[in-house]
Amino acid sequence: MREIVIGAAQMGPIQRADDRAAVVARMIALLDRAKAGGCDLVVFPELALTTFFPRWYIEDQAEVDAWFEREMPNPATQPLFDRAREHEIAISFGYAELTPEGRHFNTSILTDRAGQIVGKYRKVHLPGHSEFDPDRSHQHLEKRYFEPGDLGFPVWRNMDAWIGMMICNDRRWPEAYREMGLQGVELVLLGYNTPSANSQRPDETLETRLFHSDLSMQAGAYQNATWVVGVAKAGNEDGHALFGGSVIVAPDGLVAERAETEDDELLVHACDMDDCDFGKATIFDFKRHRRIEHYGRITAQTGVIRPDGTTG
Amino acid sequence: MREIVIGAAQMGPIQRADDRAAVVARMIALLDRAKAGGCDLVVFPELALTTFFPRWYIEDQAEVDAWFEREMPNPATQPLFDRAREHEIAISFGYAELTPEGRHFNTSILTDRAGQIVGKYRKVHLPGHSEFDPDRSHQHLEKRYFEPGDLGFPVWRNMDAWIGMMICNDRRWPEAYREMGLQGVELVLLGYNTPSANSQRPDETLETRLFHSDLSMQAGAYQNATWVVGVAKAGNEDGHALFGGSVIVAPDGLVAERAETEDDELLVHACDMDDCDFGKATIFDFKRHRRIEHYGRITAQTGVIRPDGTTG
Repeated sequence: MREIVIGAAQMGPIQRADDRAAVVARMIALLDRAKAGGCDLVVFPELALTTFFPRWYIEDQAEVDAWFEREMPNPATQPLFDRAREHEIAISFGYAELTPEGRHFNTSILTDRAGQIVGKYRKVHLPGHSEFDPDRSHQHLEKRYFEPGDLGFPVWRNMDAWIGMMICNDRRWPEAYREMGLQGVELVLLGYNTPSANSQRPDETLETRLFHSDLSMQAGAYQNATWVVGVAKAGNEDGHALFGGSVIVAPDGLVAERAETEDDELLVHACDMDDCDFGKATIFDFKRHRRIEHYGRITAQTGVIRPDGTTG
Repeated sequence: MREIVIGAAQMGPIQRADDRAAVVARMIALLDRAKAGGCDLVVFPELALTTFFPRWYIEDQAEVDAWFEREMPNPATQPLFDRAREHEIAISFGYAELTPEGRHFNTSILTDRAGQIVGKYRKVHLPGHSEFDPDRSHQHLEKRYFEPGDLGFPVWRNMDAWIGMMICNDRRWPEAYREMGLQGVELVLLGYNTPSANSQRPDETLETRLFHSDLSMQAGAYQNATWVVGVAKAGNEDGHALFGGSVIVAPDGLVAERAETEDDELLVHACDMDDCDFGKATIFDFKRHRRIEHYGRITAQTGVIRPDGTTG
């Protein structure tokens, strides 16, 4: 048995006016509850330190950059790292990263139980669009404010397990899980901010949207025999609703824990990494069953090419 | 609107003693019901003409070959093709194929509404094992009796839609759907024979096994914005239980129709191919969102290579 007690630290809404200190205080409160619950690792959402600012079209780059972190840890987040080290709890959370070279990424980090950053991931699958779209009920400007991640889908050894990260929309892409599955991943950590309404399809129900989120994480878990921890930032941010639905998914694809609220909420589950072994040794023993000679289009072409030569 | 009325023709068990004529008569009866239901296309299961023989270890190659078809159509199946042409219903079904060169495949075909074969697929992801395994509750010798398909995952234009096929265990592999998704597939036809018990994990419940089947097909449909028609051969074949659970899944991943029995049963649904358009134009617009520069492992390696260089 290789048990990691995982805390999925869903966060309620962060308003535009909330400063980093207020947010970090909430994260520390969740960390304290996780310590009481015996957690070894706590996972916070995507862009955990701020509101989900890509919903707004902002023309002033200085105003955009104010949502970004220039180093990590930094003075605002140091207390979180300190408390994590004190509790001997590894943490993972997302933030907007502005590099010394002026590059912008949607990033998440993973620490060890001593509070040292051991892994960084930059979101590969940026959803949405890059210019103002008057036909949407709200904007989703991730393609404007970030560039696509340049680090691939790394997997790290931490706490006697193979751990990877993805962020939000990555969870809908089987390629993301498979890249990590091919590195033996046993635990995928992912945070998200997902609007409760589809900006381009008003009749899509919240129930359907939660189903799509679950479906993608459960399929990724099952088809790669890995734990998946999906953690929402949820609730009403300045009039814009984000759904909750944080889950801890077992390697058989079944949901082990599920959030009930759209507020700060901690799910705790003792996850045995050895539970990945059965799937990896049988139905998803890749070396016996995958047939890469028939997968060529997956890496050879980005978009659709139909048999008649038309593209889509 | 590009509507195809689809009949998913689940079949109950076929016993070892049942001959082709008896099975074809049942398929024709389903076809007649489909005609009454207004169907344009009827989908039958994997290995629709025989019992699921890979559950038995057979040493005599002549006895093995008796489960195979040397041509298609052949005298036993000609009445099925004749009735389909008469009804102007396109059909798809699976069978064991023995080629003139002596090669063995687990194959399915697709006809047009004139009864002409317009597409052939050979199963790529063969599950199970190739030698007798005394540790299993039953054998699953597909790797013994078949060679992996050599045709990739083709997509054909038929009835004003882009149609592909996969077979049984293929449905658990996201690569199979994606290969077709990258060709613009709008309708995936697949038959299966899936034991109700896991031969290597007796405590896995039927409920979990049906969930895995649904999960894989629903994720494949959603993540490629395509209809998926999954058709079981079900029930008790000579003491070996196969589950039912045939479904017609819509391009949003929701189940449109579901079988209730483990017998011959026809699901009918009017499937609008235009329902694929929204997903293909938005969240799964591959050309805008896929990042093939980070998918290299998917085609470069078959099995697991961990960051420390160990393999699995």
